[in-house]
Amino acid sequence: MVILQQMQHGLRLSANNLPRICLIPTFSPPPALHDAATTPANQQDLREQGSVFMPRFDSHGLVTAVAVDRTSGRLLMLAHMNAEAIERTRETGRAHFWSRSRGRLWMKGESSGHVLRVVEIRVDCDQDALELIVDAAGPACHTMAQSCFYRRIAADGSLERVVGD
Amino acid sequence: MVILQQMQHGLRLSANNLPRICLIPTFSPPPALHDAATTPANQQDLREQGSVFMPRFDSHGLVTAVAVDRTSGRLLMLAHMNAEAIERTRETGRAHFWSRSRGRLWMKGESSGHVLRVVEIRVDCDQDALELIVDAAGPACHTMAQSCFYRRIAADGSLERVVGD
Repeated sequence: MVILQQMQHGLRLSANNLPRICLIPTFSPPPALHDAATTPANQQDLREQGSVFMPRFDSHGLVTAVAVDRTSGRLLMLAHMNAEAIERTRETGRAHFWSRSRGRLWMKGESSGHVLRVVEIRVDCDQDALELIVDAAGPACHTMAQSCFYRRIAADGSLERVVGD
Repeated sequence: MVILQQMQHGLRLSANNLPRICLIPTFSPPPALHDAATTPANQQDLREQGSVFMPRFDSHGLVTAVAVDRTSGRLLMLAHMNAEAIERTRETGRAHFWSRSRGRLWMKGESSGHVLRVVEIRVDCDQDALELIVDAAGPACHTMAQSCFYRRIAADGSLERVVGD
């Protein structure tokens, strides 16, 4: 029952985005769940300070994920993941995302070969964003730029290409 | 008329999120807008390859923004910006965001003093995400961690603190 409540309140699943496998297979409720009522305040503490991965999906069942190059530290791309994308990424070590425009799961590089090998996954304080630290097999952007962030806003408000990309 | 269409189609403004000042004050339609019909395909080309900043706001009038430390290259935080947050950030050089939970504009560090001085703003290929390259005046996270991404997913699926944070 506690686990069920945890899934309902912690993961905020919607009927359309149920994960096929629970994201917390080794779920072990931390002491606070036994010792205290799960008020919003200690739910927040658990999410921010705890050791349980409990992603906070939005109403579409998604979290934001950014890929960062392990060697250069450069921000490569930003996309979205649902529970299945997280699961596939962890299973395969290759970055998978949910395409909002195509409405389907995709593996980055599935057609180009420019896969992102995921070395580490970090999660932010409130667990609604992930950082994927990756080794990239090629340009991260479909435009063939190394990073999707290949333009900066210039002083006059126009966009200019970042040198070297 | 072209400008109006550009704002309607390019910025996808919602009634609740009208910018107080047009984001493209020096708007100068690129040649393609004069020479060809603005089909979805060349709208996409303009957005991906052009020099006009035309952020693609979501249905809530927001784009995703990530802050990256200029010196270390480390990913610091992820938040959201509406048109006004972008405008204020560009005007003041201090990162402003739209708080979805509080429903208001906020300047990062307005209470803690841990402002983010924005050195450069980059935009991604389809212009729905921004990268803020910043100098941070203190911990970026409200938990006092240097970065909000202070935990990684361990092999057993639990979260563990990133060493040094």
